[in-house]
This record gives sequence, structure tokens and C-alpha cells, in this order.
Amino acid sequence: MKYKISGNVIRRLPRYVRTLGALEAAGKEKVSSGELGVLMGLTASQIRQDFNCFGNFGQQGYGYNVRELRGGIAEALGAEDDRTAVVVGAGNLGRALIANFRFGECGCRLAAAFDVSPALAGRSIAGTPVLPAGELERFVRENGVDVAVLTVPKGAAAEVAARLAACGVRGIWNFTGADVEAPGAVVENVHFTDSLQALMYYLRNGAEG
Amino acid sequence: MKYKISGNVIRRLPRYVRTLGALEAAGKEKVSSGELGVLMGLTASQIRQDFNCFGNFGQQGYGYNVRELRGGIAEALGAEDDRTAVVVGAGNLGRALIANFRFGECGCRLAAAFDVSPALAGRSIAGTPVLPAGELERFVRENGVDVAVLTVPKGAAAEVAARLAACGVRGIWNFTGADVEAPGAVVENVHFTDSLQALMYYLRNGAEG
Repeated sequence: MKYKISGNVIRRLPRYVRTLGALEAAGKEKVSSGELGVLMGLTASQIRQDFNCFGNFGQQGYGYNVRELRGGIAEALGAEDDRTAVVVGAGNLGRALIANFRFGECGCRLAAAFDVSPALAGRSIAGTPVLPAGELERFVRENGVDVAVLTVPKGAAAEVAARLAACGVRGIWNFTGADVEAPGAVVENVHFTDSLQALMYYLRNGAEG
Repeated sequence: MKYKISGNVIRRLPRYVRTLGALEAAGKEKVSSGELGVLMGLTASQIRQDFNCFGNFGQQGYGYNVRELRGGIAEALGAEDDRTAVVVGAGNLGRALIANFRFGECGCRLAAAFDVSPALAGRSIAGTPVLPAGELERFVRENGVDVAVLTVPKGAAAEVAARLAACGVRGIWNFTGADVEAPGAVVENVHFTDSLQALMYYLRNGAEG
């Protein structure tokens, strides 16, 4: 199934999955667009509009089936896909993601990590092998790697992203803080600043609600 | 100056700062709401509405002054504040943030890190001293710490967050993936999954635009 949804709706979908997951965990079976709106700071009509893209998960006046709606959105977000991922750059941040991030929940299988440091190559981190950076292209081609987590130093970001795109990686999850070009690949930039800035706003102005 | 803005607008403000910063770096002095809309995937009227909260940075038909608008939004986000921050948990993720995150750009000064490991206490990471976890409360009180970056293991998150709130920390930047309660403090949760899920969506359905 294919979906055509605007970028802003796509950015809201993971929040719906989290909110609905929390409701499901609390044993709630149905939820109205109004209740969800209160939880998420959106209007009921905005929520109904967003969910129209996902087919028939509820009837006007009866509310949405929490489990089905959560599953439908998660599926649209590729949670049941079977992508192969690698981490490029096994420094502190790379290691933190290798050891703690649940790739499986996002439809990814972490196959290997790569690092330029000879001291790391051949070791493994939380069960994931660390390979020499020189083997990146071969590994990507032989294993059909779809997604690369880019956790190299900022100065190396552009070169490594270009290499990844050139050998067929289609998605780059970019933690470097550098803008990278990767022809033919989707680049998703992680901006830690965004959430600290929001926190700073609330410290000045008081919390939401 | 105090601002009253909805949660969803606040979430957009850091993106405005980044987009306007890129325009400023490219030498652009004026920008219209229509141009910004194209860059950010929003309608011009949405953008005009968002900016109305920030006073008079542009005139209808003349566009916004890029530098002034960026500065005004950054100021509202506390970028010129002088908050004192600590990192609690000097594992891989904590160390990555200590060494690489630019706290100063968000109006924070990183004063110290804390860890339960005796092997780390007394060391310093990129110039930031690592202190024993037992000294947390005293340090927070004596130094008027406003913000704590929570990078302890998930299992310790609830206890540490409660300690932080109890000794007067007003903002918790929570990377643990656990829901934490911190009475009297603002908690900002970082969800790495959100951006990987968006990337997975685009891998399935093609990129934006």
C-alpha cells in the first residue's frame, strides 16, 4: 500500500504512534479525535483530516480503534519493513545508538558498524561487528544495505555521505550536524538543538497547557 | 519580553531559526512569507500567523528582515539566556553531548557532568569535570543549575529525574526513552525514533516535494 501525505503530516505520524501506544498500554480500546486532540495539542478536525489518509479506522461518533489505528500508522512508517542498516562512525554517539537504539521497532536490522580506527575494527559492540571503514562499499553492495546512520565527525560527513550514496545506500540518518549532499538518497537530519530550544522556551515562559 | 504561543508553533520555531540562519549565511537580507513557505513546507498565511507573535519584523509586501527575524525568534527561544546545565550520566551518549553539543548556542553553559562510576569521577571530558553522582544535589544548589541533560540508563531515569526536580532543577532534557515525572520541572523528551520513522516513510514512498 502506498500513501501520499504532506511533509508536515508525516512529521506528526510518529507522535500519533507514541500517543496511541501509550493509550493501548493503558488498556484503552477506542479513542475520539477530540480526546487525541487534547493529548497532542491539535484540533479534532486536524486529527480527522490526518487519519483520512489511512483508510477506515473509525466511524464518526464511535471513535477510532486504538490498536488498529496505531498499527496502520506504524505500518505506513515502515515499522514492519525489513531494512538493513549500518552505523558509520563508532565514536561515542555511534556506540550509544548501537548499544541502545531499538532499530527493530523502526523496521531496521543493524548489520554492522564501520570505523576508521584500527583499534575498533574487528571488535563488536553489543553484538554488532565493527568493520574497517575501507570495507564499507563492499559490505553495502553485498548485503543490500538500505540505511546508514551517519555518526562520523562533522568534518568527515560530506565525504562519507557521498560514498554511501554512490554505493547504493538509499537513506542516510544524519547525526553529524553538517548539511550533506547524497544524490539519490533521502537524508534525515537529526537536530538536537530543536528540542533543547523548546525546553529553553518553556523555562522562560512556563510549561504547556 | 514574554510570549504566549501554542505548543505546535513552539515546535516550529527552531526550524525557522535554522532556515533563516541558512538564508542569512547565504547573504539574503529579506524573505517573503511565500519564499519561506516553500522552503519549510508551510503556507504563507501560516507563516505570517506564526510570526505575528514576535512583533514587527516585516511589512506586508516588503518581506521580513532575515537577520532581525532570526534574532527575534532565537531570543524568544532563550538563545541569549545564561542557564547553567549539567549532564547526568557520562556514558556514550552523555560523552557525545559533552564533547560535541554546542550548549552555548542554546543559551546554556555546561558546568559539570555526573556519573555513578568511580572510574569516571574526577576526570574531565572535553574540559567538563565529571563529578561523583553523590555530589549532584549539593552542586545543583550551590551553582543554581537550571537544566539537566538526562543520559543515565533507562532503568535509573525515574529515580534521577525525581532527585533533580527535588533539588531545584527546572528543566530536564530527557534522552533516556523512559517517561519520567519531575514535579515542578519541564521535561523535554528526545525521541530518536521519530526521525528514523520519517526516513523509513520516505524510503517507502519517495522523498518530499
